[in-house]
Amino acid sequence: MGRSSDLNSLKTCAVIGAGNVATHIAPALSRRLKVRQIYSRNLNNAQLLADNIGGAAAIDSLDSLQADLDLYLVSVSDDVIADIVEATSELTSGIWAHTSGSVSASIFAGKENYGVFYPLQTFSKAKVVDISKVPFFIEGNNPETSQLLFDLAESISDTVYYADSDRRKNLHIAAVFACNFANYMWKNADDLLRKEGLDVKVFRSLLQETLDKLEVMSPEDAQTGPARRGDVNIMNTHAAMLDTDKRELYQNLSNRIMKLYNE
Amino acid sequence: MGRSSDLNSLKTCAVIGAGNVATHIAPALSRRLKVRQIYSRNLNNAQLLADNIGGAAAIDSLDSLQADLDLYLVSVSDDVIADIVEATSELTSGIWAHTSGSVSASIFAGKENYGVFYPLQTFSKAKVVDISKVPFFIEGNNPETSQLLFDLAESISDTVYYADSDRRKNLHIAAVFACNFANYMWKNADDLLRKEGLDVKVFRSLLQETLDKLEVMSPEDAQTGPARRGDVNIMNTHAAMLDTDKRELYQNLSNRIMKLYNE
Repeated sequence: MGRSSDLNSLKTCAVIGAGNVATHIAPALSRRLKVRQIYSRNLNNAQLLADNIGGAAAIDSLDSLQADLDLYLVSVSDDVIADIVEATSELTSGIWAHTSGSVSASIFAGKENYGVFYPLQTFSKAKVVDISKVPFFIEGNNPETSQLLFDLAESISDTVYYADSDRRKNLHIAAVFACNFANYMWKNADDLLRKEGLDVKVFRSLLQETLDKLEVMSPEDAQTGPARRGDVNIMNTHAAMLDTDKRELYQNLSNRIMKLYNE
Repeated sequence: MGRSSDLNSLKTCAVIGAGNVATHIAPALSRRLKVRQIYSRNLNNAQLLADNIGGAAAIDSLDSLQADLDLYLVSVSDDVIADIVEATSELTSGIWAHTSGSVSASIFAGKENYGVFYPLQTFSKAKVVDISKVPFFIEGNNPETSQLLFDLAESISDTVYYADSDRRKNLHIAAVFACNFANYMWKNADDLLRKEGLDVKVFRSLLQETLDKLEVMSPEDAQTGPARRGDVNIMNTHAAMLDTDKRELYQNLSNRIMKLYNE
C-alpha cells in the first residue's frame, strides 16, 4: 500500500479509557494530534491521565464526548467495548478504533470509518514502556482508514503491520505459546528450585541470555538441552527424579524436541 | 559455614580449557590470582585467551602443566573431563575443580582437594557477560576446599551457593524447564508467526516484559492468558485453528494451567 494518507487530517482525538493501554498510548498520540478528551467511568482516573496531556479534558460521561473529533480511540477491556459502541451510537463520524487483539473491528459496524489500533504488548501503569519498540497491528474498514491508522501508528512506533481479525487471532495464539506457556515452564522450574531453597530468579541471567539469543538466531537453531542432543541417559535420570505430573510434562516435551531434531 | 578460609592461599592457577566458559571465567579469576597457564589442545585457542591475561602461558600439552599451582580449573566439555583427570593423574596437589553442572565432583577422586566451580549461565565467546551477575554453585570434597572455592566465586560474582551433585542435578532439570522448554514454546510461536510472514522477533518487547515480571512476582502470580482465566471459548477457538500436533500441545498445557488456577 502506498503512502497516500495525509496524517494532517487527523488533528483531534478522544481517548476512551484510562487503563494500562490508554495510559501508555495517549501521551504518545498527544505528540502527534490534540487529545481533547479522556473518558473513564472513574473521573479521577481520567483526570490523572489528562493531567499528563496538555489541553485534554477528563470526562466520565460518554454523553460529553465531542461529536466533531477526527479519532475516537477505544482502549477499554474487551468485554466493555460493545457497551461503549452502544452508548455512542449517535456518533458516527470520525475514525473509531479499539486497541484489542481479540475483538473484531466490525464491532464498530454502525460507524462510517473504523478499525483496530492494537499494540502487541503487556502494559502496566507503573512501568515505563518505550512505545517506539512496541509493534502495532492495524486494521481499517476501508483503505483510507487503514492507511491513516497505519501512518498514525508509524508516527509513534518503529514497527507497524496490517492485520485483519484472523491474523490477530493467529498472533494471539502465538503469544499464548510464547508468553503464557513459556511462563508456565518458568513456573515448573520455580517449583523445582523452591525445593532447593531457591527460586526462578536465580535463573535471571540465564533466561535473559536465552531470550537474547533470539536476536541473532531462530528458536529452532537456539534450542539446546538433553532432548536436542538426544541424550537419553540424562533424560531418564531427570525423569526418575521428577514427580508423576512433572515427569509426564518433561517426557512429552522432550519427546517432541527429540522428534524434531533427531529424526 | 563461617568465613574461615584465607583466599590468599590461592595465589596461582592453571585454566584447563579455552572454550566459552574458560574464556569468560579466566579473565575474572586473573583479577584475583595469577593465571600462570592456559591449556587447550589447540594452541591458538590457548594463546588467544592467554593474550587477554597478563603473565599466562599458552600450552597444548598437559605434561607441561606446572605441578606446584594452587588451583587447576578444568573448563572443558563434560565428556572430556575424565580424559583430563587421567592425563594428569600424577598431579595430586592443589585444588582441582571443574565448571560443569552435570559431572560429579568425585571424578577427581584421585586428587587431594577437589570440587566444582559451576557458573549457571550459557556463555558464547562473542558475547560479553557480566560475570558478577552469574550465579555460581560450589562443591568441595572437604570443608576447607568448599570454603576456598566459595570465597573465590564470591570474589567475582554477587551470587554464590553451595550445591552438591544432587542439587546441581535438580538445578539442571529446572534449567531444562526454564530455558530449553521455554525456548521450545518460542519455537512453536515462531512456526505460527512465520505463517503470517512474521517471526518470533516481533514478540521481542512482549517477551522481555514477560521475563521482567519475574523480578517482581513469582511465575505463578505472573501467569496470564485464556487458560489462567479459564476462558474455554477462546481456548476452543484457538484449538480449532491449530494443526493436530500443536493442538495436542496447546490443549495439554492449557489443561494443566486450568487445573492449577481454576480448581
